[in-house]
Amino acid sequence: MRFVTVETDRGPRACGVRQDGYIDLNAADPALPASLKAILALGPDGVRRAGEVTKEAGAVLDPATAKLLPPIPDPQKILCIGLNYRDHAIESGAAIPPEPVLFSKYPNTLIAHGDAIVLPPESAEVDYEAELVVVIGRGGRRIPREWALKHVGGYMPGHDVSARDWQLNKPAKQWTAGKTFDTFAPTGPFLTTADEIPDPQALGIRLRLNGRTMQDSSTAQFIFPIAELVSYLSNIMTLLPGDLIFTGTPPGVGMARKPPVWLKPGDSVEVEIDGLGVLQNPVAAEA
Amino acid sequence: MRFVTVETDRGPRACGVRQDGYIDLNAADPALPASLKAILALGPDGVRRAGEVTKEAGAVLDPATAKLLPPIPDPQKILCIGLNYRDHAIESGAAIPPEPVLFSKYPNTLIAHGDAIVLPPESAEVDYEAELVVVIGRGGRRIPREWALKHVGGYMPGHDVSARDWQLNKPAKQWTAGKTFDTFAPTGPFLTTADEIPDPQALGIRLRLNGRTMQDSSTAQFIFPIAELVSYLSNIMTLLPGDLIFTGTPPGVGMARKPPVWLKPGDSVEVEIDGLGVLQNPVAAEA
Repeated sequence: MRFVTVETDRGPRACGVRQDGYIDLNAADPALPASLKAILALGPDGVRRAGEVTKEAGAVLDPATAKLLPPIPDPQKILCIGLNYRDHAIESGAAIPPEPVLFSKYPNTLIAHGDAIVLPPESAEVDYEAELVVVIGRGGRRIPREWALKHVGGYMPGHDVSARDWQLNKPAKQWTAGKTFDTFAPTGPFLTTADEIPDPQALGIRLRLNGRTMQDSSTAQFIFPIAELVSYLSNIMTLLPGDLIFTGTPPGVGMARKPPVWLKPGDSVEVEIDGLGVLQNPVAAEA
Repeated sequence: MRFVTVETDRGPRACGVRQDGYIDLNAADPALPASLKAILALGPDGVRRAGEVTKEAGAVLDPATAKLLPPIPDPQKILCIGLNYRDHAIESGAAIPPEPVLFSKYPNTLIAHGDAIVLPPESAEVDYEAELVVVIGRGGRRIPREWALKHVGGYMPGHDVSARDWQLNKPAKQWTAGKTFDTFAPTGPFLTTADEIPDPQALGIRLRLNGRTMQDSSTAQFIFPIAELVSYLSNIMTLLPGDLIFTGTPPGVGMARKPPVWLKPGDSVEVEIDGLGVLQNPVAAEA
């Protein structure tokens, strides 16, 4: 099933997605939490119950007027994997990494489908990166690779917006600052539960900039598949429900083009992943 | 005044520290939130009210039996600054950075005073780093340097535990993995509000390993003072109440010694900062 999180007078509310609109799950069944990460934490039984409630409920929110939030607006961690598509590592001039490259974003970067990516005046090189985002369902520590997919609650399109001048040219070469400007992590529009995606390593992933296809690949190209990433990360840290893993981007980023392509005010970026929907965001200058 | 956060049957509770014990602030005055970051978000008026309640309240928790948590167990961000003491940059073989070096930890790393730092079997080079931790009180974006200290809610000792083999020798040289193992960010024992620290750039900071002084410096050695860090970070991201800034470590870390000194099971590490108390943590092997 598909979940969105919607802004309401009572705060963010997890909703089931139905043909005719959104179902506020906690309003329809007070046994279900109002936050999506708390619903995912209930495991398959909670997700099943959310599916039943979505089918049966009466009151529907109108998607035309509901304000979407990021499906998970409040993760404890946004874990990002660099150089995880073989061809992107090559276009970046980087070696194929022998193990996953971990970097981070903070929740200040999260925006929803339709929200503007804001270009900070400090950067002249803001780039796009289409990514599959894995959402942890059941948390854990030292999760064996063979069980790791059971800890995945769902998937969604994500966009790892990156200020290349800040990512690559700063002292000590840490990527963090270039990855953590406000609005630099669009996700959504909705989360699709893992049970609906039989093979997450066979999804087409595309990015369009003003309608032109700039990235076009498949999650079959992962150097480190999802199960390996979840297991690897869980050997470092306790994973919690709602944690996000940005799994890397395919070839075609702006910095690898000649001449390079940077985001500019008025642009529109779409990230599309097979079965997971289209995440669209306009680009704007900082007010 | 001083705040701790204590584990109770009702979850984490912010407490004022009094000579005779801890005062559960929300229990004593329901107008005060139960979380310390929410109290800091109230600004000087909230902190003043918490001070009054701490003086007047009747029921006292016994420090001998209360289980301390990290003062801020749930920050949205743990922002870490690298190479911010001139001498530590030199001992690390790094250039004096022309602007702050930003890297990150996640909240999974936070442990309290007295909790064990757990050595993961994957690392043979776990090192210590004494740090002054700045806690944001009032949030903001694009905070001018001259107002920045008004956004600081308080200070506390912190410990940026670092697996050097993971920090420095991994593909793409990102520090994140080496800094984010569970238990790698002790903070506490208490938070001291900013009004009690007339000059945060004149605090002695020391680290003792099994009683032996390994780091001994002063926050006067900062390359980038606190006001500049707060302003700089706020130009990248919206700061929120409760966000933590680890401000860098002075010379004397284990990796710079000949032979190098690594943490081992049974060690005891103390971080002491003038006016902010002593943060003690034992070191243990992973069970």
